Amino acid sequence: MAKAYINELQGHVGRDVTISGWVVTTRSSGKIAFLVLRDGTGYLQAVFAKKEVPEEVWNAFGTLTQETTVAVTGTVREEPRSPGGYELTATGLEVLAPGGEFPITPKEHGTQFLFEHRHLWLRSRRQVAIAKVRHAIIQGIHDFFDQRSFTHVDTPILTGSIGEQAGELFATDYFDLGKAYLAQTGQLYVEAAAAALGKVYCFGPTFRAEKSKTRRHLTEFWMVEPEVAFNDSDANMRLQEEFLSFIVARALERCREPLKELERDTARLETIVPPFPRITYSDAIAKLQAEGSDIKWGSDLGADDETALSKDSEKPLFVMNYPKEVKAFYMKENPADPRTVLNNDCLAPEGYGEIIGGSQREDDHDKLLQRIVAQGLDPSGYTWYLDLRKYGTFVHSGFGLGVERTVAWITGIPHIRETIAFPRQIHRLYP
Amino acid sequence: MAKAYINELQGHVGRDVTISGWVVTTRSSGKIAFLVLRDGTGYLQAVFAKKEVPEEVWNAFGTLTQETTVAVTGTVREEPRSPGGYELTATGLEVLAPGGEFPITPKEHGTQFLFEHRHLWLRSRRQVAIAKVRHAIIQGIHDFFDQRSFTHVDTPILTGSIGEQAGELFATDYFDLGKAYLAQTGQLYVEAAAAALGKVYCFGPTFRAEKSKTRRHLTEFWMVEPEVAFNDSDANMRLQEEFLSFIVARALERCREPLKELERDTARLETIVPPFPRITYSDAIAKLQAEGSDIKWGSDLGADDETALSKDSEKPLFVMNYPKEVKAFYMKENPADPRTVLNNDCLAPEGYGEIIGGSQREDDHDKLLQRIVAQGLDPSGYTWYLDLRKYGTFVHSGFGLGVERTVAWITGIPHIRETIAFPRQIHRLYP
Repeated sequence: MAKAYINELQGHVGRDVTISGWVVTTRSSGKIAFLVLRDGTGYLQAVFAKKEVPEEVWNAFGTLTQETTVAVTGTVREEPRSPGGYELTATGLEVLAPGGEFPITPKEHGTQFLFEHRHLWLRSRRQVAIAKVRHAIIQGIHDFFDQRSFTHVDTPILTGSIGEQAGELFATDYFDLGKAYLAQTGQLYVEAAAAALGKVYCFGPTFRAEKSKTRRHLTEFWMVEPEVAFNDSDANMRLQEEFLSFIVARALERCREPLKELERDTARLETIVPPFPRITYSDAIAKLQAEGSDIKWGSDLGADDETALSKDSEKPLFVMNYPKEVKAFYMKENPADPRTVLNNDCLAPEGYGEIIGGSQREDDHDKLLQRIVAQGLDPSGYTWYLDLRKYGTFVHSGFGLGVERTVAWITGIPHIRETIAFPRQIHRLYP
Repeated sequence: MAKAYINELQGHVGRDVTISGWVVTTRSSGKIAFLVLRDGTGYLQAVFAKKEVPEEVWNAFGTLTQETTVAVTGTVREEPRSPGGYELTATGLEVLAPGGEFPITPKEHGTQFLFEHRHLWLRSRRQVAIAKVRHAIIQGIHDFFDQRSFTHVDTPILTGSIGEQAGELFATDYFDLGKAYLAQTGQLYVEAAAAALGKVYCFGPTFRAEKSKTRRHLTEFWMVEPEVAFNDSDANMRLQEEFLSFIVARALERCREPLKELERDTARLETIVPPFPRITYSDAIAKLQAEGSDIKWGSDLGADDETALSKDSEKPLFVMNYPKEVKAFYMKENPADPRTVLNNDCLAPEGYGEIIGGSQREDDHDKLLQRIVAQGLDPSGYTWYLDLRKYGTFVHSGFGLGVERTVAWITGIPHIRETIAFPRQIHRLYP
């Protein structure tokens, strides 16, 4: 008997196959019994007719509970009414292992309980759907850059240099070299790589030991950071538009069923095409003030400000040219207004907040050194980074996209803790 | 003037373009001058005729040194003798930034010096070639699994659970939860994900605080770890054969020029197709003993043993069924010889040693618990992992491929420290 996966049944119509998987639900009329089965690639209904199957098969059906591991044999039939388009007329059933008293039942469970059982909760329809969308987004990210001749460069996690001054760092002892810190960004390193390879990106886990408990924060999250030689800030925003539009389109193309499972309003995603609206930080402050906010020019935007700014926008919104003081030392001074820098944040629609931070980088050695000193950082930690401005310095720009926030937006789920298989939060390190 | 990248010139033949990049070399006869330029996507020769270009362009040429940042304008010509197939008849030259006294000159430098200047050394032809092959391999890994309906699952780096008992761990303080450890593997987590998604893989950095200084060890390296529900050990090895053959083929297809730059004997890579030879551990011991080794049954294989076993093999070699005592607790007992487990290592040809470790996993709850206890581990750290055997346990297998060792083998370079942009070794955390 040919083994098959549920997502491959189009090639097996009319043929007999065996599918291994787990029991989702069962129901029986006494004469006909229905088994919904999952194998990780999809869901399938198998139909057992008491008169047609051997008695031991019918009896085996009666022992099935949620998560029983089974191998079901039967004939594949087209069935337009079923979600996957196929059904199985079952002829055989082998129980491979008992489901036990599976803790995650169809009833409601508390958040705490579900995260304690995250290793089992992952099997539920909603979590499977989120995982599929996350996969499609990640593969889309790699494909986008590969198609455009970017070179993937892995930047170090263990580092002595620190990219962002903000937030707190996880530290570990490193042999005889003192402390190493877990990277908050790979940006400084991809800047070095951009001088070698032109268009590069890193994609890895990043770490923030911040005591943030919001629905937008994890202590460990994945970030993709492209960096492009000879791109200025404007070209950088155009790349961001193309990039975000590409991955949204990819999710729509590849994840019709998962997005339906998640009850995502996909019409809102269909509108995500370039160009995206742009507003300067100064205009954004004026707009917030006009709406009654008491925010002052010079303050960073908070989550509520971001929501207020982006609430009327169908598309992601670029907010450009923030004050120098609230942004990192490596951002290039704006020649048109030296109080500000050539940067942009990108705010997702529907209140999902900042999903991208990007900037043109300071490429002038002396200005960069001044900024390092002005921000109270030790220049000796940045010798190699300053070298990039000594030898063939170059206009360059890049950005960082937070994967979990992007998955939350595209799937339409409220809290990013469900967008990764095993989230790390300040009170959560298990499982 | 249209901006262009060097790898896109086939679309610009006969047209004028401007290319931004860095000076590799210059030479001049006094009437004709040649500039080899790189932009990260490739190398290009631009030809300046003194009589044809404005005097300021000719004079600017005279100021160029290695790593000067330039924008060169000219007409694209086909030139079959040049590596990329094109040349530029230059009409303009703008110096964007000086190259300075670039530390990495064409002369020989010591290893220590080069790694201290790794951020600049990355720009050299050999390092660019290695980076391109690494990129092709990584994209190939994602494509292989995506094409086969695997779901990419990111497993946590910060963890309380420990996959391998061997080696030492990097630790960090984690808020009020005590110590967190940097993951040595994502395997235990992908096992949980395989029960949800069937075919999964993780791909991330892994950490070993071992004091190993060999040419095969880094403290931080990237590993891809697929895990497949309902695959037994034999299917696991077939997947490994297909996978390795796919990424070798991808490198050959996409990296002709980089492999040539690295002087790789690609004929040796052309032979990498399934099936791969297999030998049991017991037969391997007998073979080593017959060749004069004093190794005893029950000892793990060392690097020299691996080299001796694989030296005559054109293809990667599977060594199967190691003694239980030298392998991790999660490997399934071999029913045909319970002293051994259903595992395999995969040894690369040409003396590159182990690049894959794989196994069928113990799916029996009580046997797994016994093994955890027998190896002196604390079962309370594995509650969630044992749960996978309580609720719908299932036959499953997987493996881990070390990316850096694979890149070393495919590029044919002797030491893995050059296979990653910023290697981490016990004495190296900078740049």
